[in-house]
Amino acid sequence: MEQTIYRGLDGVHIDTTTISRIDGQRGELIYRGYDIRQLADKASFEEVAYLLWHDDLPTRQELDAFHHDLAANFPVPEPVFDAFRSMPSDVHPMHAIRTAVSLLGALDHEAEAVDDANVHRIGLKLLAQFATFTAAYQRIRSGKEPVAPDPALSVAANFLYMLNGERPTPAATRVMDVALVLHAEHGSNASAFVARATASTLTDVYSAVAAAVGALKGPLHGGANVGVMQALERIGSTAGVEPYVLEMLDKPGGRVMGFGHRVYKVMDPRAIILKDVAHHLAEESGDSKWFEMSLEMERVMDREMEKKGKQVKPNVDFFSASVYRMLGLPRDMYTPIFAVSRISGWMAHLYEQYANNRIMRPRLVYDGPTGLIFKPIEQR
Amino acid sequence: MEQTIYRGLDGVHIDTTTISRIDGQRGELIYRGYDIRQLADKASFEEVAYLLWHDDLPTRQELDAFHHDLAANFPVPEPVFDAFRSMPSDVHPMHAIRTAVSLLGALDHEAEAVDDANVHRIGLKLLAQFATFTAAYQRIRSGKEPVAPDPALSVAANFLYMLNGERPTPAATRVMDVALVLHAEHGSNASAFVARATASTLTDVYSAVAAAVGALKGPLHGGANVGVMQALERIGSTAGVEPYVLEMLDKPGGRVMGFGHRVYKVMDPRAIILKDVAHHLAEESGDSKWFEMSLEMERVMDREMEKKGKQVKPNVDFFSASVYRMLGLPRDMYTPIFAVSRISGWMAHLYEQYANNRIMRPRLVYDGPTGLIFKPIEQR
Repeated sequence: MEQTIYRGLDGVHIDTTTISRIDGQRGELIYRGYDIRQLADKASFEEVAYLLWHDDLPTRQELDAFHHDLAANFPVPEPVFDAFRSMPSDVHPMHAIRTAVSLLGALDHEAEAVDDANVHRIGLKLLAQFATFTAAYQRIRSGKEPVAPDPALSVAANFLYMLNGERPTPAATRVMDVALVLHAEHGSNASAFVARATASTLTDVYSAVAAAVGALKGPLHGGANVGVMQALERIGSTAGVEPYVLEMLDKPGGRVMGFGHRVYKVMDPRAIILKDVAHHLAEESGDSKWFEMSLEMERVMDREMEKKGKQVKPNVDFFSASVYRMLGLPRDMYTPIFAVSRISGWMAHLYEQYANNRIMRPRLVYDGPTGLIFKPIEQR
Repeated sequence: MEQTIYRGLDGVHIDTTTISRIDGQRGELIYRGYDIRQLADKASFEEVAYLLWHDDLPTRQELDAFHHDLAANFPVPEPVFDAFRSMPSDVHPMHAIRTAVSLLGALDHEAEAVDDANVHRIGLKLLAQFATFTAAYQRIRSGKEPVAPDPALSVAANFLYMLNGERPTPAATRVMDVALVLHAEHGSNASAFVARATASTLTDVYSAVAAAVGALKGPLHGGANVGVMQALERIGSTAGVEPYVLEMLDKPGGRVMGFGHRVYKVMDPRAIILKDVAHHLAEESGDSKWFEMSLEMERVMDREMEKKGKQVKPNVDFFSASVYRMLGLPRDMYTPIFAVSRISGWMAHLYEQYANNRIMRPRLVYDGPTGLIFKPIEQR
């Protein structure tokens, strides 16, 4: 009997969810019923994280309590910083983020239980601490001391503050907040799926989140916006964009980083919002180079894809690269910043998985020899 | 349209493989064409690891070269031990194992490439170091100094030596070796699958292996033999076995740890081999209590299951518990020992995944609200 093989699990439905829906045909993304465009326009990252973990947006009182609980969890234990200090300064920062999560698990005496209350306790702690240890890692590898979190600040403002040691402007804080909202959740992509699959053995939250960090690190997933910025830096000017795109399309496979998406067949709604944010930032900061190069790349891609009768649109990684660049963030920190936001979505998936679990054990079709007879080593 | 939902990915085939085949109906397990009974009887763990990573068993020359390369990689960098020292002594040891793997990734300047040569380089290093850091962790949390690995010893002998600081007997070494052979590989179970899914974003080997360690940690997977020993210790005597089994079967769900398997419908072939090993060990050591309790539990389960017209046989975890106990290994180290062996199988899966990759992105069926209108926080 021939088995159907679902490589990449394409089109395989693994469960129901109430967290988010992606409509790839219409270019829509909703978090628990709310369109991402409304949320990016009007909600803070804390409101969105609360929404993803509960049934609805918080009241003022609920939001205040949520911020209070987060702020109490902002500080990170010292052994995490010691581990950062033991690392060479030039490795991929996601190794440090993954190790921080793993070490936090070893430092938590109550790590094991996966009932709703304990999973929420750890979720709140991780949401609070991802920004702290990510900023601290960047400072430590630059030879600086970590900046202690300010309990009065939001996650977005605190993150920029702990990175730079200076209070961010309201404009920069708002851009960071929008970026966090847009990256918070995106269905059962590889990292959220890995979190769920890991949790399906009823292992602890830290194991599942460390696994998700490792998956997000990959160049086919969260590493993509780093690739976009590398390309823009290599190109160097608007005039260089067209030859670059043509050269890339001419290669076997013919892909350009930051374009196309497995799920979205029209433009990723997050890319539309970030394009707008990038436009404003470019005008405000006077540093329009990266945005203009991005626009030129979009124009050339549109033209070339039209020739082939295809629609291959910019995805969220495409404009987040220039936005982060204009915020002054180091290129190899783009993926850790993605994680600072996505921990909210991962936790939402873990709540669902633990509440209604079945261990994941797919099959492989064996395609090798059978019935071999063992020969002693002297006779091989 | 109603979607078919594959919870636990039951019956979903994700790829072809040449690593191993499990025939659950016949109770057979083969590694690259060789029946596990032949390998457990005649091959060393090093021969089996070589087999899993190549097309066939090694010649003498190949095996010598393999051992030489392994031995050169036995020593573990000091920052890993420093991280162990920063951990409280009473947490689940798998947090330490996962953190060790993650930190090794941060310490490796060449971690990123996923071409065949680099994946093999890291695989060899991890296979060599899992035994070293697992033994070192056990010593450090007991207030002792790590024992340096002896390059002349096999993985099995070295592991016991580094745990106890004394050369193991040939009999103990042989039992350890058989246990490692039996646990080396078992298809796309949750941990191997999580390793593949993580690697599918083309992230590095350390990320994929740390994820697998986290998945193995769960009580539904590698944590199961710990549960078996906990039960045996709680029961305390052969006379206590029958009431315990009847009590467990009377509960909703009615499961007894160490019995039944998603894939094997007859007795797990690894359990048959370990039962034999346990029998010999009990005779040799004179400590037959745990083995006799295990036999009694098997007898009661057989009788009770027959009444229900079911076949629920002991699995590999059932007899590995009493074997490890008779070897004098601490109970909460059973899952780390599983990992010391399974790193060989995980790496075999990673070779396959990286060589022929597609990112894993299954779907979830959205079952929540749509079209909600955002209200400002004051109006909620």
